[in-house]
Amino acid sequence: MEHRDGAVTERVAQRSGGKIVLLVADGLGGLPHPDTGLTELETAATPNLDAVAREGVTGLHVPIAPGITPGSGPAHMALFGYDPVRYEIGRGVLEALGIDFDLKQGDVAVRLNYATIDGNGIITDRRAGRIPTEKCVELSARLDGIELPGVQVFTRPVKEHRAVVVLRGDGLAGGLNDTDPQKTGAPRLPFEAQTPAQERTAGLLTAFLKRADELLRDEPKANAITMRGIAALEPIPTVGERFGIKAAAIAGYPMYRGVAGLVGMDVLPKAEAPDAVAGLLREHYGDYDFFFIHYKKTDSTGEDGDFDRKVAATEEFDTFVPGVLAVDPDVLLVTGDHSTPSALASHSWHPVPVLLRAASVRRDAAVSFGEGACVTGGLGTVRAVDLMPLMLAHAGRLAKFGA
Amino acid sequence: MEHRDGAVTERVAQRSGGKIVLLVADGLGGLPHPDTGLTELETAATPNLDAVAREGVTGLHVPIAPGITPGSGPAHMALFGYDPVRYEIGRGVLEALGIDFDLKQGDVAVRLNYATIDGNGIITDRRAGRIPTEKCVELSARLDGIELPGVQVFTRPVKEHRAVVVLRGDGLAGGLNDTDPQKTGAPRLPFEAQTPAQERTAGLLTAFLKRADELLRDEPKANAITMRGIAALEPIPTVGERFGIKAAAIAGYPMYRGVAGLVGMDVLPKAEAPDAVAGLLREHYGDYDFFFIHYKKTDSTGEDGDFDRKVAATEEFDTFVPGVLAVDPDVLLVTGDHSTPSALASHSWHPVPVLLRAASVRRDAAVSFGEGACVTGGLGTVRAVDLMPLMLAHAGRLAKFGA
Repeated sequence: MEHRDGAVTERVAQRSGGKIVLLVADGLGGLPHPDTGLTELETAATPNLDAVAREGVTGLHVPIAPGITPGSGPAHMALFGYDPVRYEIGRGVLEALGIDFDLKQGDVAVRLNYATIDGNGIITDRRAGRIPTEKCVELSARLDGIELPGVQVFTRPVKEHRAVVVLRGDGLAGGLNDTDPQKTGAPRLPFEAQTPAQERTAGLLTAFLKRADELLRDEPKANAITMRGIAALEPIPTVGERFGIKAAAIAGYPMYRGVAGLVGMDVLPKAEAPDAVAGLLREHYGDYDFFFIHYKKTDSTGEDGDFDRKVAATEEFDTFVPGVLAVDPDVLLVTGDHSTPSALASHSWHPVPVLLRAASVRRDAAVSFGEGACVTGGLGTVRAVDLMPLMLAHAGRLAKFGA
Repeated sequence: MEHRDGAVTERVAQRSGGKIVLLVADGLGGLPHPDTGLTELETAATPNLDAVAREGVTGLHVPIAPGITPGSGPAHMALFGYDPVRYEIGRGVLEALGIDFDLKQGDVAVRLNYATIDGNGIITDRRAGRIPTEKCVELSARLDGIELPGVQVFTRPVKEHRAVVVLRGDGLAGGLNDTDPQKTGAPRLPFEAQTPAQERTAGLLTAFLKRADELLRDEPKANAITMRGIAALEPIPTVGERFGIKAAAIAGYPMYRGVAGLVGMDVLPKAEAPDAVAGLLREHYGDYDFFFIHYKKTDSTGEDGDFDRKVAATEEFDTFVPGVLAVDPDVLLVTGDHSTPSALASHSWHPVPVLLRAASVRRDAAVSFGEGACVTGGLGTVRAVDLMPLMLAHAGRLAKFGA
C-alpha cells in the first residue's frame, strides 16, 4: 500500500526500540491434500506455533504481487522490506551468492553454461548433456586459470553444466544480453553494449569466451560455454541505513546468507539444528536489534512434491520456536518467503501464512497456525514488503508521520 | 488499491448524486483489555452503531501504510481522499491551523519555541523551562509588534513555550531547515536556503529572530527563540474540484476545522454536543453534498491511557448516531482517523474500524461494531484514501470508467 517503497518508513524509523526476530520457513505455504482438505502446515502437529497463534495475530502476505511466483532472492528482499522489483538482484549475482562466493560491490557475475557446439559453432546441446558435477568442477578449475587485462577473473563450479564467472575491477557493468540463444541449431549471440562500461565488460567477456573455447576444444561434450544473467552487484542501502536496525542472519544455505549480507546484515556462523540456532540467538542477542533465521527444508521437500516429508519438515520447524521464545523477543514474526505446495512441486504465488507476536498486537480468533485460519486473521492480507514496517512498529521503532 | 491518488475517481466524479455524512471518532481504534480481550469499542455499549452495523457493511482502513502511525493532519487528509504523503501539510501550517489562525495560500508558518541561551548564544534550555501559557501569551504579544520589510508578520501564542509566526507576502517559501539544534549546549543553526524564495524567507526570519532576541533580552528564562517546521501553505485542489462535492465540516477543535478548510470545506460554527451537531446538520442539510463531523474525546482519552474513559467517550460518540440518521443521509460512513489504543496512550498504526450504511452496500454478518467483527467485514481492509471513492460510489456520484 505504500507508494514509494518504504520511503515513509525510512523517514520515521528510529535507531532505538525493541528487538525483532523474523523466523522464516522457506516455502511455508502449501495446498490442501486431496484426501483431507488440509495443507501441509494444517496437517503438521505444530503445538509451539499454535500456542503463539493463540496469543498473537495471524494473516497472509503476498510475496511480490497477486499471481506472481517469486524466486528465493526477490522473496527474501521483500521480507527484508525491499521492493523486489525496484531492488532487483541480477541472476548472475544470485548464482554467485548461492555458492557462497564473496562478491564485492561493482563485481560483475555471470551464469555460465557448459554447452556442445559443432564444427560451425552451432549449438547442438545447451547443457552439454548435463555433465556430472565432478566434470563441472574439473572444467571450471581449468577456466579459472584464464587471465584478462586489468581485471581479476574467477570461475567457480555450481552444479552439473552450470558455473559462475566473476569479473572484478573498475568500470564494469551488468545488463548485457545473454549469449545463450535459448535454442539449439543456432550460434551463440554476440554482446550488444549500450554504454562504455558495458563495452568494456563485453570485450572482456568475449575474450574470456574465446579463451574458454580453446581450453575446452577437445572435450567430447562440454566443448563451449554460453553466458547468461550478466549482472553487477549494485550498491543497496542497508537495513541499518533504511530502518535504523543492526541486523544479523542465522542461515545454513549460502544464497540466504548472501542475500542477508547484501542488505547489510551480519551473517552469523552456519546453524541449522534447533539447538544450534537457539544457541547462536542467545549468544548474540545483546548485539543486534533484528535477527533473520532461515529454515530450508519446508521448501526443498515441497519442491520434491513430497507432502508427507513437507509435513515432517514443518513439524521440525515448529521445534525451533521454544528456542526463539527463550530470548523473549519484543516482536516475533513467523512466515515463509513464498509458498511451495508439494502438489505443485515448485514455488508458487499463493499467499503465505504470517504469525506475529508482540505486546501491541490486536489479537484475533486464530487458535492454530494454518492457511485457512490466516485468511480471517487480524492482520488481513498484506504485501510481504509491508511486514518490515509492521515489525518495526510493534517494536516501537517508528515515530509518528506528521503532526 | 488505486495508486495515483484518486486520479480515476477525479475522472469519473459527477456533480450530482446522493448526500454523504462522514462521522469521525478521532483515534477510534483500540487494543484489547488484558482481562477481557475486548477493545474499548468492543467494551462500550453502542446500540446505535451496532444497529447500523446490522444493516450496513463493516471493514477496516489503514490510515497511511502498514506500520505507519499518523498524526491527525495526514490521517484526516487521507479520510478526505488525499494521499497524505503527496499532500503533506507542513508542521508550521498545522500548528497555525491548530490555533484557528486564518492562513492564506502562500503564507509561511513557523513553529516558534521560547528558549534560554547563555551569554555566548549557546542554548541552555530548549523550552525555556516550559514557561506558563500566560507568559507565552505576554511574550507573543510583544513579538507580534515586530515589523519586517514587504511582508505582514503575525506572532501568536500556542501553549507553554510554543508559539507560531506567520509571514504573509509574495515570493516566500517553506522547506527551510530548523534553527533548533535539537540539543542544549549548541548555538542555533543558521538557515540554508536553496532557492531565491527561500533566500528571501530566510533573510526575513533571520531579521525576525534578531529582533526577537532584543525584545526578549531581559527575560529570565525565555530570552531567545528557535524556529522549526517552516512551511508554506501550498495550494491544494479542493474536494469540490476533485470530487464534485460541496462539503461542510462540523468540528469543535481548531486543527480539524483547519484541515477541512484547507481542502475547501465550508467550516460551520463550532458544535460538540450531539444535539448541537444534529441541529447544525439539519439546518444545513439542503446546502451541501458532504458533511464531515468530528468527535474528539475518543482520541484524548486514549492519549491519556484511560481505557474506561475511552469506553465512556465511545458511548457518548454512539449517541451522535440518531441525530445523524434523522436526516437519513444516502451514505453514512463511521470511522476514526487512526487508532489511539489506551494501552499505548498514543496514536498507533493499527487498522481502524469502518462502518458504511447505504442502500447499495453488500451487507455482511457483523451484528456489532468492533475491531474483531470488522476484520471479517464485507469491506475488507482498505487504505483510508480509498474511502472517499467508496462513499462517492455509494452516493451514486461516480460514473462508469470506460465503455
